Amino acid sequence: MWNEEQMKVYLREKLSEGRYNHSLGVKDSAESLAKRYGADVAKAKIAGLIHDCAKEMDKKQILHICRKDGCDIDYILEANPALLHGSAGAIIAREVMKVEDKDILNAIRNHTIGKRNMSLLEKVIYLADYIEPSRNFPGVEELRSAACRSLDEALVLSFDKTIEVVISRGGLIHKDTIEARNFIICNKTSQAK
Amino acid sequence: MWNEEQMKVYLREKLSEGRYNHSLGVKDSAESLAKRYGADVAKAKIAGLIHDCAKEMDKKQILHICRKDGCDIDYILEANPALLHGSAGAIIAREVMKVEDKDILNAIRNHTIGKRNMSLLEKVIYLADYIEPSRNFPGVEELRSAACRSLDEALVLSFDKTIEVVISRGGLIHKDTIEARNFIICNKTSQAK
Repeated sequence: MWNEEQMKVYLREKLSEGRYNHSLGVKDSAESLAKRYGADVAKAKIAGLIHDCAKEMDKKQILHICRKDGCDIDYILEANPALLHGSAGAIIAREVMKVEDKDILNAIRNHTIGKRNMSLLEKVIYLADYIEPSRNFPGVEELRSAACRSLDEALVLSFDKTIEVVISRGGLIHKDTIEARNFIICNKTSQAK
Repeated sequence: MWNEEQMKVYLREKLSEGRYNHSLGVKDSAESLAKRYGADVAKAKIAGLIHDCAKEMDKKQILHICRKDGCDIDYILEANPALLHGSAGAIIAREVMKVEDKDILNAIRNHTIGKRNMSLLEKVIYLADYIEPSRNFPGVEELRSAACRSLDEALVLSFDKTIEVVISRGGLIHKDTIEARNFIICNKTSQAK
């Protein structure tokens, strides 16, 4: 697997300055969240750093490498290939950066849409992406506070915000985001019983 | 099939006064929408009148008759049997009121959650339920205006409102509502091309 410096060289070449700084922010936030919630800190830092490595790839290229790798591409992803930058990022991480760890690859793959029954590392990266220091949107402070209280509570809030933003744009909502949110809410309810 | 008077007697016995008046309102709104958008007016009136015939049944009873009838009951419906009042209503309509028409039964069945690729009558009943005269919630006028312009536009707005209300309550979102909304948006986009 590439070392951190090699990854940074790749990201500096492939990403805009803003996105590169965002990646460093996600790495730091992922580290904090991993420490707080008992995830693997080293894995969280790597996944956080490179989660957006395919974010600025051409959409056709994203679709191409995802198809070639056998990804399941439904009509929502076909219409919004940008949603596949997580899947494409996991492919780049594995093929180019030689990351073999499945936890890291899954966390990169699922950081955009989420999925049913997310792993601890997947949750950490999804949330870190939302709350890293350079993020600045209405409600981000509420999310940062929630992230200090409960990983699952903050995750549900993040999904809620994602869904609301997509609705306000008249966009398509991916069913995996709905499943991710429902799964956590159901689990919380059954734990409370 | 029972005549309108027999249906009204049943509804007056099974529903509160408010719900009974709502049913009459949905019948009228369904009639208007059917005329506007070319759906079968007679079917719209029947489906509108009896769409909530199972709404005030005991939740256990709803689950019981849906299970007995072979409905597909996922974990969201299991957790919220009230969402099955459309399915239970279609069963009552068929078994008790002797309604045989599949269009009417489907419109009753799918008026709560929606589904992918809804029929014209299903859309009319879903929307009539939302905008009938006694409805009074923030945004209902916007919905009524949209319903005069475009059935699909008003449907998407209704789904958006449903999803936002469920989010505000921390509830579970059913994937069929998401599919119903995505399907209309995708269709509109492909028609516009």
